[in-house]
Order: sequence, then C-alpha cells, then structure tokens
Amino acid sequence: MLIVMKREASKEDADYVIKRVNSLGLTTHVSDQDGKTLIGLQGDLHGLPVQALSGLRGVERVQPLNRPFRLASREFKDSDTVLSIDDVAIGGATVVAMAGPCSVEGREPLLKTARAVKEVGASMLRGGAFKPRTSPYSWQGLAEEGLQILAEAREETGLLIVTEVMSPDQVPLVSEYADVLQLGTRNMQNYPLLHAVGESNMPVLLKRGMMSTIKEFLLSAEYILSHGNQNVLLCERGIRTFESYTRNTLDINAVPALKELSHLPVIVDPSHATGKASLVKAVSKAAVAAGADGLLIEVHADPDNAWSDGFQTLDIGQFGELMKEARLVAHAVGRSM
Amino acid sequence: MLIVMKREASKEDADYVIKRVNSLGLTTHVSDQDGKTLIGLQGDLHGLPVQALSGLRGVERVQPLNRPFRLASREFKDSDTVLSIDDVAIGGATVVAMAGPCSVEGREPLLKTARAVKEVGASMLRGGAFKPRTSPYSWQGLAEEGLQILAEAREETGLLIVTEVMSPDQVPLVSEYADVLQLGTRNMQNYPLLHAVGESNMPVLLKRGMMSTIKEFLLSAEYILSHGNQNVLLCERGIRTFESYTRNTLDINAVPALKELSHLPVIVDPSHATGKASLVKAVSKAAVAAGADGLLIEVHADPDNAWSDGFQTLDIGQFGELMKEARLVAHAVGRSM
Amino acid sequence: MLIVMKREASKEDADYVIKRVNSLGLTTHVSDQDGKTLIGLQGDLHGLPVQALSGLRGVERVQPLNRPFRLASREFKDSDTVLSIDDVAIGGATVVAMAGPCSVEGREPLLKTARAVKEVGASMLRGGAFKPRTSPYSWQGLAEEGLQILAEAREETGLLIVTEVMSPDQVPLVSEYADVLQLGTRNMQNYPLLHAVGESNMPVLLKRGMMSTIKEFLLSAEYILSHGNQNVLLCERGIRTFESYTRNTLDINAVPALKELSHLPVIVDPSHATGKASLVKAVSKAAVAAGADGLLIEVHADPDNAWSDGFQTLDIGQFGELMKEARLVAHAVGRSM
Amino acid sequence: MLIVMKREASKEDADYVIKRVNSLGLTTHVSDQDGKTLIGLQGDLHGLPVQALSGLRGVERVQPLNRPFRLASREFKDSDTVLSIDDVAIGGATVVAMAGPCSVEGREPLLKTARAVKEVGASMLRGGAFKPRTSPYSWQGLAEEGLQILAEAREETGLLIVTEVMSPDQVPLVSEYADVLQLGTRNMQNYPLLHAVGESNMPVLLKRGMMSTIKEFLLSAEYILSHGNQNVLLCERGIRTFESYTRNTLDINAVPALKELSHLPVIVDPSHATGKASLVKAVSKAAVAAGADGLLIEVHADPDNAWSDGFQTLDIGQFGELMKEARLVAHAVGRSM
Repeated sequence: MLIVMKREASKEDADYVIKRVNSLGLTTHVSDQDGKTLIGLQGDLHGLPVQALSGLRGVERVQPLNRPFRLASREFKDSDTVLSIDDVAIGGATVVAMAGPCSVEGREPLLKTARAVKEVGASMLRGGAFKPRTSPYSWQGLAEEGLQILAEAREETGLLIVTEVMSPDQVPLVSEYADVLQLGTRNMQNYPLLHAVGESNMPVLLKRGMMSTIKEFLLSAEYILSHGNQNVLLCERGIRTFESYTRNTLDINAVPALKELSHLPVIVDPSHATGKASLVKAVSKAAVAAGADGLLIEVHADPDNAWSDGFQTLDIGQFGELMKEARLVAHAVGRSM
Repeated sequence: MLIVMKREASKEDADYVIKRVNSLGLTTHVSDQDGKTLIGLQGDLHGLPVQALSGLRGVERVQPLNRPFRLASREFKDSDTVLSIDDVAIGGATVVAMAGPCSVEGREPLLKTARAVKEVGASMLRGGAFKPRTSPYSWQGLAEEGLQILAEAREETGLLIVTEVMSPDQVPLVSEYADVLQLGTRNMQNYPLLHAVGESNMPVLLKRGMMSTIKEFLLSAEYILSHGNQNVLLCERGIRTFESYTRNTLDINAVPALKELSHLPVIVDPSHATGKASLVKAVSKAAVAAGADGLLIEVHADPDNAWSDGFQTLDIGQFGELMKEARLVAHAVGRSM
Repeated sequence: MLIVMKREASKEDADYVIKRVNSLGLTTHVSDQDGKTLIGLQGDLHGLPVQALSGLRGVERVQPLNRPFRLASREFKDSDTVLSIDDVAIGGATVVAMAGPCSVEGREPLLKTARAVKEVGASMLRGGAFKPRTSPYSWQGLAEEGLQILAEAREETGLLIVTEVMSPDQVPLVSEYADVLQLGTRNMQNYPLLHAVGESNMPVLLKRGMMSTIKEFLLSAEYILSHGNQNVLLCERGIRTFESYTRNTLDINAVPALKELSHLPVIVDPSHATGKASLVKAVSKAAVAAGADGLLIEVHADPDNAWSDGFQTLDIGQFGELMKEARLVAHAVGRSM
Repeated sequence: MLIVMKREASKEDADYVIKRVNSLGLTTHVSDQDGKTLIGLQGDLHGLPVQALSGLRGVERVQPLNRPFRLASREFKDSDTVLSIDDVAIGGATVVAMAGPCSVEGREPLLKTARAVKEVGASMLRGGAFKPRTSPYSWQGLAEEGLQILAEAREETGLLIVTEVMSPDQVPLVSEYADVLQLGTRNMQNYPLLHAVGESNMPVLLKRGMMSTIKEFLLSAEYILSHGNQNVLLCERGIRTFESYTRNTLDINAVPALKELSHLPVIVDPSHATGKASLVKAVSKAAVAAGADGLLIEVHADPDNAWSDGFQTLDIGQFGELMKEARLVAHAVGRSM
C-alpha cells in the first residue's frame, strides 16, 4: 500500500501521516517523486483504515501496489534510480564499464589488468576474492588477501571495486574493502544473505539467478530494499537453457523488461552470458543498444593462463576494442560511455 | 570432404576432378571462394582415394569438413553470403527491414500497412496467408486469396513479399506469389518440406525451432543447401525457456554465434522473441548492434484489432520510431538501414 | 459447446437437434457416453441460440467446453478411451508393450528381433522405414522396402506394426502396411500432416513435441480428432531441458496429468526419454506405476551394431528382464501386461 | 586419487600410508569397502609420487578418480550407502516415508498431522520452521518455536524430524531439535552452508537445485562429504522446465541415474515436483518403481487452510491411500515400505 501526498502538502502533514501509520504497527518507507512525498507501508495490511488515512490533511490518495515487488517497482517510483558512488553515477546518462579478472590471482597481475582497463575507460574494477566454485576441489580464491590487493588497485587507479560476498558473516569484512558488494547467481535467493546486505548500506550488485524469472529477480531485490538498503544494481548474466553452444543464454529481453517493471539500474554481464570470448563484443554492444546502464566484463592480461573462466575472458586489446565500439553504440542511443 | 582447387587451376582441371568424383558415385557441390574453385563432395565417403584426388592437376588440397553442417559452414565458405533479390541485398552493408501483419486479413488493411511500412523504410512485406495455429479452432488464414493480396501490395509498393509455406505441396503455389518462402519455427525439422524448398530455387527464410539448438538450426539449413538451393536466410525468433514474462527468450548470443559458424545472413524477429510490443524497439536495436542483417517486425495499422498476435504488434507510429532509432544503431556499427 | 441428450431421448430427437445445429452453419461431432448421446458443435459459436437449443425435445443441457481442446478432454468424454486393433486393446486393463529397432535395417535382423520380442510378451512391433534425421547426410531409412519387411514380420509373428509417417503424401502408402501411424516428435505441430492422418481412419500414435507443453500436445491431438479420426494414442517421449546426462527428461508428471485432462490412452517411450539403455528398465517400471497404458521400447538383437540410436537400445535379454519386472509393477497397480 | 589397500593389509600398514600422505601436505579420507581400506587423497595432487606410494607395504593400487565428484561416486564406493538413524534405515530394503506440512503452523495442527501420518506408516515427520520465501512480505515461519513443536511431536510419536536450515549460523540450533537437516533447492549451491553442515555430523537431506544438473547435484553432495560428513541423502524434487501445467517437472530419469553414479540414498519429493495434489499419488508410485529409497510428501490435516503450498498438499485420507498403493509397488520391486 502506498500513500501519495499532495504536492502542496507540508512536511508536518507527512510526519503526521507517518505517525498514524506507525501507531498501527506498520513501518514506512518514505521517498520523493517529482516533488510529492510517497509513503510506502510495510507489515500486516489486513484491516488497514484506508478511508481514515485518505482523509488526513495533505493526502492525495491511498493506493494498493499491484506488483508483488513494491519498492522495486515503477509504480512505486517512476523515475530512474541513479546510484552515485564517489564520482561514478550508475543509471544516468553514462554507461558504466566494470572490468577485471574472474578471480584475483595475485598483486602484480591484478594491478596490470587494473591499469589497463582504466586506461581504456573502465570506471570500476571487478575481481573475486571469495569464489563460489561448483567443485569443492577447485581453488576457492585468495580471501582477505585478495581484498587487500583490490584495495591497493583502487588506491593506485581510482577504480571503484566490485567483489563478491558469499555469506552474511563476510559482509562486514568485504564492506571494508569494496565499493559494491556482488551477490552471485547462486545466491540470488540466499535470503539470510539478502537480509544481511539489506541491513548494510553498501551498494549491491545483485546477479540474476541462472534459473530465476524476472519476477523472482525483482522479489530478491525487494528483500534488500525492504531491509532498508536502496542501493541495488540488477545484473542480467544469462539464464540456463537447452542451448549448449554457449555457456548461458543472455536474456536480452530482460533489459527493457526490467526497465519497464523497475526503476533500478540494469547491468549486463556478457562474459558469463556467453562463456565465449569471441561473442562478448557483439553481445556487449547489444546490451548497450537495449538500454543497459553498465557492462560487467571479464578481462585478464593473459586469458590463456587465467586460473578460472579463461575461455570467456578478453585480453586487454580485445577489451579496448570493445570499449571503442560499444561507445559508438552508446552515442547512438543518446548516452556516453 | 572438400576439394580446394588452386587459384591458377583451369575450368578444365576442375571439370576433370568433378568427373572423377562423380565416377566414384558421389555428387558434388561447386562454389567459388576468392577466385578458387571449391568442390564439396556428398555421398558415401568411406574409402575415398584422397591420395589420388590430391594428385590431380590443379588440386591445392583435399580437406575434411569438421562441422556436421558442411555447406552452411564458415569452413566451407569464409566470406559472408549476400543474397540479392531484385534491388534488395541481404547480408551486405545494409540492414534490411521486413515488416507487416501477422496474417493477411484483407485487401484494404494490408495495403494500408504496406504503404505505411514502405514510407518509413521497410524493403520487404511480411504477412501470413497460410497460418500454422496451435488450435484447430483458430482461424487458419486466407490461403490463396491472401497470396493475391500480397502480390497486389508488391505491385503497388515495390516491397518484396515474405510469406509462409507449410507443406511441400504448397511450395509451387506460394512461389508464384512470394519473393521469399518462410519456414516457420514448428517446421524447422519438417524434412520433406526442407527437401521441397531445397529443390526450388526460391529464397528461404528459415526460422529457428523454438527449442532447437544452434547446431540443429544449421543442420536444417544444410538440408536446404544440400538439395541445391543456396538462398537461405537464418532467422532467430526466440527460444522457449522457463521465463514467462516474455513469450520467448531472444537468443541474442545466437547472432554472433551463427555469424562465426556460418556464412549465411542472419535475420532477427523481435516480435515473436518478446511477445510484447513494449519491448520490440529496444530488442530490435540490440539485434542490429549484435550484427543482424535484417529485422522481421509485426506491424499493423490497428494492432488492438489484429486477428492474431496483437499484443506483440507495433502500430505504424511505433514502427517509424523503431526504424529511426535502429538506423542510428546501424550507423554506429558501420552499416546503413 | 456440447449438447448432452437425455438418456431416454430417441435417435429422432438427436437427429433433429443435429439438423437444427447444421442449419446454423455449424458442424457436429456425435459420440455416445454411458448411453447418452453427446453432440459437439464446431464452427463460429457467436450468437448461438442456447436457450432455443436447450428447449428442444430430448436435450438434457447445453454446456460450454472450457478446455481449448474439446474432443480430447475429460469434460467431453469422461470414460477412458480403449482403442482396439485386432485383438489388442490399448487403454484397458492390459499394459501394452511395443518394441523393436529404431530403424528397419534389413529382413533378417528385423525378423530376428520381432520373434524375440513376441516371445517375451510384446504385442506390437516398432521400426522406422522413413526416418527423420537431424542431418541430411545421415541414412534416411529403407522406405517402402522397410514397410514390406515390417508387413512380413506381422505375417509371421502376429505382432501389430507401428511405424512413422513423415508427410501427408506418405499416409496412403504407410497405411497399407502399418497398423498404427506414428507421428514423430518433430511433427507434433505439422498441421497438414495432422490434418491428413485426421482424415484417414488409421490409429495414430502421436508423440509429444520435445519442446511442447501438455496443452499444446492435447491441441495437436484435437487436430486429429476434429478431422474425424478418434483413434489417437498420446505418447510422452521426454522433453528437452537443461539436463545433459540424459538425452531428454521424461516428464513423468505428464502421465497422470494427461489422464486427468483427457480420456485418450497414454504411451511412454523410455528409450528416447533417457537416451541410455542402462536407465530404460527403471524408467519403464516408473511409467507403468504412474498409469501408462503402454511402453514403446527400442530393442535390437545387436544394439552395438544398430545403425541408429544404439546407446539407448536394449538387447533381447535386457528387454525380457524389463518385461518380467514391469509386469510385476503392472500387477501392483491392478493391471496385466 | 584413491589408494586401495590389500585385504590382508594391517591397520599399521594403512596408518603408515596415511602418515606419508599427510607429510605431503594432503589430507585423507578413509573408508572401508568390503574389507579393504580405501584412502582418498585431497589437496594439490600435482607431482604426487604415485610410484613411491604404490610400493608401500599393503598397498594394492593407487588409482585416479575419474568423476569430478569423488567421495560421492560409485567408483569410490560401490555398495549402496545405508544411513541409519535410530531404528530407521534409509537406503536399505525399506522405502521410507517422510510426511508432514510445508510449515509448522502451530502445536495442535502439527501434532494432529504427526499422529495421523505415523498411523499410516510414515517414519519421519517433515515441517519447516525457517521458511525460504520468494517474497519478503510472505510469512517466514515460526523459527525456534517451530523447532520446539517438532521436537514435541517426535517425543510423542517417535517420528524422526526433518527440517530446513537456511544459513550456517542456524546449524547448531536446528541440530539440537532435528534428526535430519534439510538443505532447500535454493541453497544447493550455498557453499558456506554446505561447508557448515559438512562439518557437523548430522544427517543431511540435500535437495537438488531446481535448475541444477545431476553432476552439479553430486558436486554439492561432495562438498558435504569432503568436509567430513558422510550422512547425505539426495533429494530429487523436480526441475524447472518450460512446462507450466505442473509447478516443476519431476526428473524421474535422475533416480536411476543417481543410483548408477553414486552410492548415496535417493529420496523423491513428489509434492514440489508436481505442485498439484491430484498428481502426487501416481508420481509417488513411479518414484518407488524407479528405485527411490524414500518419499517426502506434504500432508496437512486441512490442506485448504494450509498457510503455504496448499495446492500440492494431501489430506490425511489421501496420504493413507498413497501409502497403501505405494507399498504394493514397493513389494513389486522387492522392497518393503
């Protein structure tokens, strides 16, 4: 349920409404839309005195939210959310490039890649320190040492850091080093983890589950939003289908679909979505043309010797070419990159 | 198996090789690549005297074809195939727009739509006269009357006609009226039909089966090519997945994947791939950015009253806007539209 | 729409109702259910004078059919359909075994397999003479020669023959030799073919499309039924999913689902559904336990040398064991085998 | 890598081998198979002195494990694992029934259901206290209060308790009350949670991810086994496909497939696999016929008023009938129930 205040309502009017709502045992989520205050209600809404609330001073209307995802919906907030971190704005006029290796493998290789991606226009550095691996016998990442290396790369290059967090108890540690917490595809419905990042105030890059529908994806975003953290980036990274030539199938439809259903920024990960370096450039351009707000690309100074995901990783030269061509497409859709 | 002739080999050399191959009970498929004659061998290749053939005058090499699709493969022909029909070239520098209603519903509505799509830059008109419908109780199309209406629209507007053929015995009739025979998604593995269109010399737009892999798609193209018809357009139209917000999932990865595996032109159908008019424009731009050679779009002067597929059909104004925006993306990837 | 006549209504009453319905430009489909005549209406039902029809002599009620598949639905006919061919009844108390090689490879091997499967209790012989093959370069079957061999096997063993028909023009030829026409998974939505077998009166084994929903499957059956042929067997043969350890995923849920939605017999093909001989026996027993009316099993005297589908084909000994164990399960669910 | 000791090797021989292996920086997993000691090696196996190890006293052979899942594989242990908890043995001659409500809703309803399912032959009680819910606004379960109610039901009825654990920090609490820890489908690749239950010694019922392959499923089991906990039950609960008539598609193929790949017991959950109460009985019988070692069934005294999953929940009478019929099938495959 959403209470929309009139444009001319005063702050006192809104505060009074909130007080009344709270007295009913409900919590509220307040936002501003085009000069009107919106008050979202959370909790048990059975028996809500809609009539009485509608009659309070300054209230324009009390309306149900039709989507099961409420705070994430366009109904709730019709203007695009722009998430600003330092001087990087995600969801605005500029398409943001996030690039880096699958895993942090060591200080020298990471710094080398970081400098190179910065050079050709990336504004964020990706790299895993904690790695979710299908097999218990695969290498599981450098852990805190990896985080320290990422922080050093930020220090030197100014790139913002995106890195994965795998469990609630890792949230404080990773938050110390990272600018954006990544939730991986296998954790999209890890509710205790969604809860934990929802209570932090860190920007979160939420990857779509490889087996999850668009609506389930937005409901997972809703978990984070409803715990108080409004800084959510949605990341389409390919879904699992019967096609086996590619590792996953990029759901390009999801880009405009998420944009029509939600106000949150949408990032696309063409590396996991294709699993083949030879396809990444074309698919990246497609993502930008479809309206993506950012790209998340696996880049490594020496992909043939990457410790994981080498097949889908670009080398520096390929990434530079991708940036050049994707930028032209960004201009064609009225954006910079 | 493929015999590559030397650039300086004479026509007599090639003819002699073909004669020898034929004498082994094999048939041949001859093509030209960058000035070299290629002789593809079909039939039972066990016990092929590779040594002897390699030694014939003018032969550069005898090589196996690794892909199960042979004539369709980049190995067989590494330059892009450009299919020219009248003054329209598909697969070249220009991205081609094919537009029109799902079904031909009558003379007036079709002519109205045809004029309008021509006006904003379409070069081909789509529309079904024979309609494959999931239910036997749904309307099945105007049949030959629909073909006549399509032919009249071509007469008046100069648009080329793409329309569906559903069975081998319809091929001669539809060929009389159409410029391109469309094979629908449910017929991608209808082998007698592939055989029949393969023996005609008509251009064929082959739609990918909604749950067929890229390799199966190319093998179906191979059926047509191996029966002698080299005029094949591949059409990605979305695959069936678990996602239900959209009608299908456009496999955007397939665009560059088909381009790396095959020399054939690739068309994308964003209307069926999304099933939602609101998503068609964004996805069309994505397809062009990914390298598609053409778009196949459902357009109707009055979508709300279309007899079929109304939800995914654009009106004239929306199609005009799509053309304008997709053209900018085409320019960004070095093409016209 | 369905008109249900009273039990005591006379033939004249029914004939009069049919005449009236025909005079409205509608066609009818008449059947008998537990002594009541049911008159199904087909055509444009807008403006149907339900009131007037309800008042005719002998009419019990006029009721809408809610399912898009009408003649195939349990609503239309609530008792199980039993299809009798010679002395084999499919859909009744006995679970029927159909067995044989993927393809007819020659006279001797077929007769050998036929005798062996007869010996252990099969009542029908399967084997392909016309083979739909993914690649144009694969062997395409013995055609009419294969049909003749099948007929000879019937002559000798008394087994009924199930074999595939691939196009409308093959229907008369195959009908001369076969007892049951098989429509393959790739042809489930080949509407001209459904139409053609619908106009024959031959029993049809309709395989579910590997990419088709249960509802689409029943709509394809409806095509056959609505063209006048009521002798339809539904065959679940596995659907395409992301799982790659098996060739397909047997949709065991579909067995009771089809039984609750439709009155038609349900056959299961564990050979294609698994693609692995080692899994066929367990899955066959599961099918019988779930309520299948028959099994379609690939059996070959020498699977390692089968020309197609060898991996999923049982040898004679394995098939005998399957029959023995499946029979015990049939007894456990109150049936014979 | 696996070291197989000779049957006549002494404990000292084995201990010496283990010591040598440990001195290489590797850990070991020791098991007994038919009187021979098997020593599995974990860690970095590059440069392993296979020759030297093979020559140690009592060593029969040193062999590579071909499957990526090692401890879970039939290669590693070829006899079926039987997991005994109190007097219930899972994986042996008796098929085990686990039944109960989706969620624990209160003391009285749970006790009522518990007594009833015990009465007709269930040996384990299922019920969720911590509930993973797709929407943050859905009811999330009674938490510890629910566990206490489950414990009381065990006290009274003697049923063993299966209940879900959602995060590593819940493991100790849930272990206090439960006999088997359930890991839900969304957590199959929650590696910190797999790690945590792997370090406990509690029996674990691991549900297959709804879009995870059989091999990924076994790799997740391997996480638990490789952390020292050998008490793992695999649970097939339906996979996500394009079919929408049912909630999921039960992968019945997976039952014999898991049995051929692994020695671990296999449980089937027909309630989630179908999502429809009307299909549960038939599919349960299929699961038993296919070789399942147990069934996990949602049962509620009053399904229409269940707080979650009502559509797929059986009432007491239906469950009784299921038990009666499934028992007959169990006998037909040589087992009791």
